[in-house]
Amino acid sequence: MSAIYEKVALIGLGLIAGSMAHAIRRMDSSVHIAGSARSAETRDIAREIGLCDSVYETSAQAVADADLVVLAVPVGAMEAVAKEIAPHLKPGAVVTDVGSVKAAVISAVAPHIPEGVHFIPAHPLAGTEHSGPRSGFATLFDNRWCLLVPTEGTEPAETDRLARFWRGLGANVDVMEPEHHDLVLAVTSHAPHLIAYTMVGVADDLRRVTDSEVIKYSAAGFRDFTRIAASDPTMWRDVFLNNKAATLEILGRFTEELFALQRAIRTEDGDMLHDYFTRTRAIRRGIIEAGQDTDAPNFGRAPASSAVNPPE
Amino acid sequence: MSAIYEKVALIGLGLIAGSMAHAIRRMDSSVHIAGSARSAETRDIAREIGLCDSVYETSAQAVADADLVVLAVPVGAMEAVAKEIAPHLKPGAVVTDVGSVKAAVISAVAPHIPEGVHFIPAHPLAGTEHSGPRSGFATLFDNRWCLLVPTEGTEPAETDRLARFWRGLGANVDVMEPEHHDLVLAVTSHAPHLIAYTMVGVADDLRRVTDSEVIKYSAAGFRDFTRIAASDPTMWRDVFLNNKAATLEILGRFTEELFALQRAIRTEDGDMLHDYFTRTRAIRRGIIEAGQDTDAPNFGRAPASSAVNPPE
Repeated sequence: MSAIYEKVALIGLGLIAGSMAHAIRRMDSSVHIAGSARSAETRDIAREIGLCDSVYETSAQAVADADLVVLAVPVGAMEAVAKEIAPHLKPGAVVTDVGSVKAAVISAVAPHIPEGVHFIPAHPLAGTEHSGPRSGFATLFDNRWCLLVPTEGTEPAETDRLARFWRGLGANVDVMEPEHHDLVLAVTSHAPHLIAYTMVGVADDLRRVTDSEVIKYSAAGFRDFTRIAASDPTMWRDVFLNNKAATLEILGRFTEELFALQRAIRTEDGDMLHDYFTRTRAIRRGIIEAGQDTDAPNFGRAPASSAVNPPE
Repeated sequence: MSAIYEKVALIGLGLIAGSMAHAIRRMDSSVHIAGSARSAETRDIAREIGLCDSVYETSAQAVADADLVVLAVPVGAMEAVAKEIAPHLKPGAVVTDVGSVKAAVISAVAPHIPEGVHFIPAHPLAGTEHSGPRSGFATLFDNRWCLLVPTEGTEPAETDRLARFWRGLGANVDVMEPEHHDLVLAVTSHAPHLIAYTMVGVADDLRRVTDSEVIKYSAAGFRDFTRIAASDPTMWRDVFLNNKAATLEILGRFTEELFALQRAIRTEDGDMLHDYFTRTRAIRRGIIEAGQDTDAPNFGRAPASSAVNPPE
């Protein structure tokens, strides 16, 4: 059986591209993986850990002869990369991306894709709070969703082929419209990230509570926010700037709702609070049942000390 | 060596009291643990799993002859319990609690404590999103903080004894003033919980994004909020009603800050966003270094499928 794509070019070698490299090798060791990164340090690390078969300074070099080109750079850098690689793409090649917003990426990239090359935007919903070429691992996409957002005129056979590739990396695949994608992600990811960043910033600013108190006593809920708020700043800046409308809409809804709950606290409307908190539990149960999180307490965090008994 | 307290009465048999029972046995199997719960189902489960040595329907029965009485009921129920147990407390006994707010609990409980009994409020900063008599485990308090909030006139020797007890259950112990406790917890716990409840509520309300989409695609950040928002509704209603001032103050600060970030998105001030997101990373590093969370990606969540290789 021949490889789904014989040569894959990864443009940018961070968490997602690095994990794709590991997952591609797990799927099919015959695939040639070319990679490029602008930072010399990233290239050195990629060579040291054998992340790719070939590592280049420019994306133009990496895409030569590639059957699949994956744009894995921050959303704000997509247009420049698309321009640079355009003259070097092999006829019949597939260009895809892994950006967290889709309408803006399509506007930025699609105009530069030459005729005879297929552009199929995509977004694997997977990640951790870590970044850089050492942060990837082969299982990142297992049982996570990868959303394909084919543009008008995309050949269905090419979309199917890319779906097969992502399933080979462990993911489940769905197809979605770009605008709906951006709204769904504003709810499930972009607004939660901004909120977590905000709460961590508030804690850091508050002079009457010291940083060391915030850190020592974080186990009470706050530490879950700090994990989200440790994500890559450049990637997230670009997400918010490029999914502005949907993010602001959801944040507007969030603020309205927060005001309603603040008011319930102020007026001591215990029934309203209790009803609200009961309703949100059901969503959690749905997520556990859908296999998208662990039911182990505290995400199954290991106890801090190892000299203790496991839960009974 | 004799036990720090020979007989301990646990009033309420949920996550915290249940974990205390397991941790007491781990520390010293000679301690007699009495427990009481208003719900017949909870009592039946407690008996079935052998959580306590004796299980009672009323708190008055459970506290007879107890050297330490632990009020482990929702904050709103503390006053009624204090009234009920007062005539039955042994002279020289210590009464403590595990409530998430302290000033309000002190106002509710202290007036009912008879002379000759020591009242030392406390708050172990530990918990999971699960509740009920089956949810406890012996390691819950290991390397977590327990804050003691002695009131005026508490004998230092009795505070030291309670600190020794909590250290025996695995916790680190600090002493704090009630008002400062309530402010610190508003930052590290109460505001984050309300925010998480709100965001999950918004997602649930949004008709253009279906519940099943929210659930399927939750891995992108939202699922961490749903874990927090799955916590016990009664407990949290009482926390907000009883730490109203500090919670509303922190939420006010949060809203100001959120508006500033929304404005940066609207005006496309990428530098402001990038600077903000870079600053919040430092707090995360502090928490990892203080041993209050794991550095494993995604809290070390296991991959969803077991038929895959571990991270390399």
